[in-house]
This record gives sequence, C-alpha cells and structure tokens, in this order.
Amino acid sequence: MGLSKKSYLSFSLVLFSTIFVLESVSAATSPPLKFKNGEFKILQVADMHYADGITTPCEDVLEMKGCSDLNTTAFINRMIKAEKPDLIVFTGDNIFGQDATDAAKSLDASFAPAIAAGIPWAAVLGNHDMESTLTREGVMKHIAGMQLTLSQLNPASADVIDGFGNYNLEVAGAEGSSLQNKTVLNLYFLDSGDYSTVPSIGGYGWIKASQQFWYQKTSLMQQKAYMSKPKPQKAPAPALAYFHIPLPEYEDLGSNFTGVKGEGLISSPSVNSGFFTTLRDAGDVKAVFTGHDHLNDFCGELSGVHLCYAGGFGYHAYGLKGWSRRARVVSVTLEKTKTGKWGAVNTIRTWKRLDDENLTTIDPQVLFAGK
Amino acid sequence: MGLSKKSYLSFSLVLFSTIFVLESVSAATSPPLKFKNGEFKILQVADMHYADGITTPCEDVLEMKGCSDLNTTAFINRMIKAEKPDLIVFTGDNIFGQDATDAAKSLDASFAPAIAAGIPWAAVLGNHDMESTLTREGVMKHIAGMQLTLSQLNPASADVIDGFGNYNLEVAGAEGSSLQNKTVLNLYFLDSGDYSTVPSIGGYGWIKASQQFWYQKTSLMQQKAYMSKPKPQKAPAPALAYFHIPLPEYEDLGSNFTGVKGEGLISSPSVNSGFFTTLRDAGDVKAVFTGHDHLNDFCGELSGVHLCYAGGFGYHAYGLKGWSRRARVVSVTLEKTKTGKWGAVNTIRTWKRLDDENLTTIDPQVLFAGK
Repeated sequence: MGLSKKSYLSFSLVLFSTIFVLESVSAATSPPLKFKNGEFKILQVADMHYADGITTPCEDVLEMKGCSDLNTTAFINRMIKAEKPDLIVFTGDNIFGQDATDAAKSLDASFAPAIAAGIPWAAVLGNHDMESTLTREGVMKHIAGMQLTLSQLNPASADVIDGFGNYNLEVAGAEGSSLQNKTVLNLYFLDSGDYSTVPSIGGYGWIKASQQFWYQKTSLMQQKAYMSKPKPQKAPAPALAYFHIPLPEYEDLGSNFTGVKGEGLISSPSVNSGFFTTLRDAGDVKAVFTGHDHLNDFCGELSGVHLCYAGGFGYHAYGLKGWSRRARVVSVTLEKTKTGKWGAVNTIRTWKRLDDENLTTIDPQVLFAGK
Repeated sequence: MGLSKKSYLSFSLVLFSTIFVLESVSAATSPPLKFKNGEFKILQVADMHYADGITTPCEDVLEMKGCSDLNTTAFINRMIKAEKPDLIVFTGDNIFGQDATDAAKSLDASFAPAIAAGIPWAAVLGNHDMESTLTREGVMKHIAGMQLTLSQLNPASADVIDGFGNYNLEVAGAEGSSLQNKTVLNLYFLDSGDYSTVPSIGGYGWIKASQQFWYQKTSLMQQKAYMSKPKPQKAPAPALAYFHIPLPEYEDLGSNFTGVKGEGLISSPSVNSGFFTTLRDAGDVKAVFTGHDHLNDFCGELSGVHLCYAGGFGYHAYGLKGWSRRARVVSVTLEKTKTGKWGAVNTIRTWKRLDDENLTTIDPQVLFAGK
C-alpha cells in the first residue's frame, strides 16, 4: 500500500474501515496495533448485556426511571473520553440474547461507541451472546465483519479449533524505535464456551485442547520470533489473555487479591481443562482478564500469572444496588533505552473506573515489571 | 500384499518381522491388530526398571541371592505362558537408565521376551528410560525400530507434538464378522513426560496441550468412522489409554477402588494439565492405565473413566518385601450377534497376576459393559 500508517488515521470513518480491511489482510507481517508515546492502553468492557436499547430496562440500580441499555452506551462513551484507549476489548455477554429481539441490531448498537470514536476493538463471546436470533458462529461472524474491529472468527492457522472467536493480536513497538517491526506485546482472545456439552459434566463450558494447542503453538512462534534476529530480545514479549469465563484457579487465590469478591463461588467450569497449566508452561501470559461474575472485580497473582475480573459493566445485567458499574483499564508502557528511544515493555499496570460522577479510579496494581 | 493374514503367522521370526514392517506401513487402512475368538487380551507390564541383566541386583525382595533383572524376564515369560496376550504394553521405566550401562542393549534385553514369544508389543516412556546412554528421543526411536513392536516415535498426522511415543493402535473386529474392517477398540499411548521443565513448577511432567489436541482429533476421527457407513454403529467404539505418570485425578478416587494404595500420595504432576477433562469430553476412553507408583496397584472409576495402576513389575525397582511383583491384564470381549457371529465390544474386564508360585489372579473388575 502506498499510504503511510500515519496518514490513514485522518480519513473518514467509511474510508478508514475500507483501508482497515486491506490492512488486516497483511496483519501477519504488519501489525495494525502499535505503541504510541511509549504506551498502549486497553479498556476492558465486561458483560454489557445489551438488548434492545432504550426499551430495555436496567437491573439492580438505585434509580430505575429512564435507565436502559443507553446507560451502558453512555458509560462506554465516558470511559473512552476519560482514558482514550488504544484498544477496547469486550469480554463476552456483549448482548443478553434472551432479551435482544434482533441479535445483529443489538450487536451493532452495543459496539457502536467504539466505532464512532474510531478506536480499534476486539470481542469474544460469553454464554449469553447466542441466545437471540443468531447462532454462536453467526454472532462471531457478525462481529468479525463490523467496522474497526480486529475480532476474528478463528485463526487461519488452525485446521481444527473449538469455539468461535479464538485469535491473537500483536502490538508492535514504537514507531521509529528499534522494535518498531517486532511484536512487543501479544494479546490472546479465546472462546471459553457457554455450557458443557458433555452429559456427565454440568455447568459452564471450558477452553478445549484444540484451543490450548493453538495458543501453545502461537506462543512458541511469537517467542521464537521475538528472541531471534533482527534485534533478538533476551526474554519473551509479555502477553495478556482475554476471555469470558474465569478459570477454576481464580478460586485458588483465596483472599490474596485486590478488589472485591462479591459472589460466593467463582463461576468457573466444574472441571479443570488445564489452561492455567498450559499458560504457565508457555510462560508469556502475565495476566488473564475475564468477566462473567458481575460482582467480582478482583485481580490477584497466582504462580506468576495475574487472574483478573473487570467487574460488571452493563446496566441490563444483574448487579448490586449502590455498587457502581465498572470497567478495567490496562496500561502497558515501554522502557526508555540509553539512546532515549522507546524499547521493550517495561511495566504493565491496571486500575478500574467506576461509573459514578467522577469516574473514580480505584485499585491500581502492577501486573508486570519487566526490568 | 499377496499373503493372507493367517498365513504369515507361521513364518519364522525374522521373516515375520520383515513382513510386519510392510504391514505397519498400511496400518491406517488395515489394522494389524484384531480380535480372535471374540477376545483381545492385553498384558500391561509397568516399571520393569531393567538395567544390565544378570549383574543387576533385585531390590526389596525377601531372598536376594541369585535375584537379578533375569527375574523380571522370567516373570514376563511366565505371564505370557499363562495369559497368552494378543498385545503386551510396557508403560514406561522400561529400563532404569541410571544403572543401565548401554541403553540400547538394556532395551533389547528388556523387551526380548515379547519378541521371542512372537507377540506384538507397544511401549511408552517413563521418567527413567532416558537416564542411560540415549536421549528420550533416542530411546523411543530405538524402541520403534525393534522387532514386532507397534510402538511409534510420534503420529505422522501431528505437525507439532510434545514428547516421544504418542500414537494410537486400532484393533479390528473379528475376521469374518461384519466389523472385520472396522476399528472396534482403540488404544492410545502417550508420553506423560519425565520432569517439569518450567522453573516455577516442580515435580513430574504432564501431558501437554499438543498431545491432548492430537488425542482429541484422533478420537473424533475414530468415532466418526465407527459411526459411519459401512456398518454404522450407534455409539463410539470404546478405547483405553496407556501412559506412565498417573493423572492428578487418581487422588480423587479417595478409597473408592479395588486393590492397594501402598504409597501416601499419588505421584502425579503438581499441576493439572486437563487431560482427564479432555478424555471425558471426547468420551471414548473407558479406562486409563499407568505405572510409576510401584506400591499402588488399584483401579477405580471416577466420572465414568476407570483410573488404574498395574503395580510394580520389575525386580530392580523399589517394592515391598513380601508383596509380590505383579502385572495387569485387560480382556476385551465381543458380543455375539443374532446370526451367531462376533459383533462390537461387549465387555472389558481386568485382573492382576502376582509373581508367586501360582501366578495368583487377584482383583477381577469389570471396566466396561457395553450392552
């Protein structure tokens, strides 16, 4: 393409999205995401539970009058304005299918704020997204076809994979730095399923062997590339993983976390499918981010991996009266090299914002300190 | 090939093994294993711990004089004579590498009884096989090149797989029956590793995502083939899995098993890599057979899958004075159809034999009753 990376940002939304599709095709060699001014910021939106918009009432709020899905939209807009994220990640139950008359319309409305703001976004599926007029595959296909999204139905490299919406996104180093053509941060997105399909196993779905193998292979490839020429690095680039249903190991944190555990038990699958072991084995993922339990917003470290919730975001979702809807922010910053240029990832921080008058920032934590 | 299946059994050992190699090449379409007289019998030999033969002393026996690796060989020969198995499976720690001067020679000697008896055999690796003069890969390559073995280095279908010695063997229905060209019993063999290679994780190795994905794909393919034309079956063919290190779920049996738990804790890996969930998810494996803990010989059912030890077999291995070395036998029998011919698998039974004067049979159990 004859256009520079910089110039296309000034195009109109329609033109942008057209160019973006072309960019996506060559994503393997030219990652569309990169660090700007030494930082890359991710806004996580968990459990929007969007349905039909203004006619869909809120749940568990102090003031019901005039409260609807539009409050969820307003909260995203406030968060975008306050944090100016480089990427928005929607971690499932984006729509609450049972109450959405038309899945496609509901999806379009739920993700609209990201598109309107011109911010790249990625989504995974929860256990409610497919309860409307589209199948699970249909929902993910619709999402992957939307404007400005980096969401993918599934990786082209996997011949067989369970679920829909397993993919990874690579974030390149700062432009003009020696790592501008290397992936300094990896983001993994997985479909944690909805419900068990095995008659003898009850409860929620889980991340299957096929998905873990795809992650294992991708991670190995990424680590090899990062530590090879040109500019071979000494340690693998850090990575983050986003999906909907928490791993059983969230329970193992006990009370060793920052934030609130407002629900009795973690709503993980009833079986352990080993993804936490697979993550530890590969070693690049420093933090896992899920949703699913709206009254849990905690984040704690277990065996070198942070296990984090975002807390409930959507207004048409169960919550707790008087306990603000909230969102999680992750800020990844680069080190400054001796020559004064940006280098590899230095620190990964997180905090949350409450949807109160001041969008109050709470619970700052360091998830990774590279140097 | 112009030879009938029957006729080649009468050839000499050397000729047999030559033909056998040719047979193996076409194994995908023509499984070399099949039911005879409605039964297929498997002898499991766990933890031979073979070293240098007559110069290698026994451990933990009442009478040490004249006791060596040759007692292990003698025990295999007695078992072969008593049970006449259709397949012998060696589930790792076949040799005790630390004490084996020459790995290849030790391997040759340890498996010799199967070859001498003309019985097909399969082996997987334990955590001691690679402690002599060959690497883990070298040991498995040597094994896969031996006479009469059905062992494979790794499946040709897997582009990436952890470990050495992951493969499956298909057992066809009885000759002359309507299922003579279908796989009525599947056998999976996996490399459960040796020790953790992740610095933050101690203890033994585990079955990785890549291996589980291979199992998941193979199982799916097998189940599809079995339930498709010609002669589509209503339920998947049962399967058995053999490897060395027990799964963490062995501990979950509590005291709900038949046999002896002579060791305090199960020596499983310190992490759960999810293989038990993957097995339950795929649904075909009815029983898992491991070794590793020589003083555990129990077998019990957890969530529809039997988890079984064989008990220690080898004389140059820790044991318990006065507690006989032992082996596990599995007998799979076919149903009789209305026309009087053999059909699908009807029952899977197991028992053990002690290396005492009478080769006493103990602990009979039914692992699967299909009809």
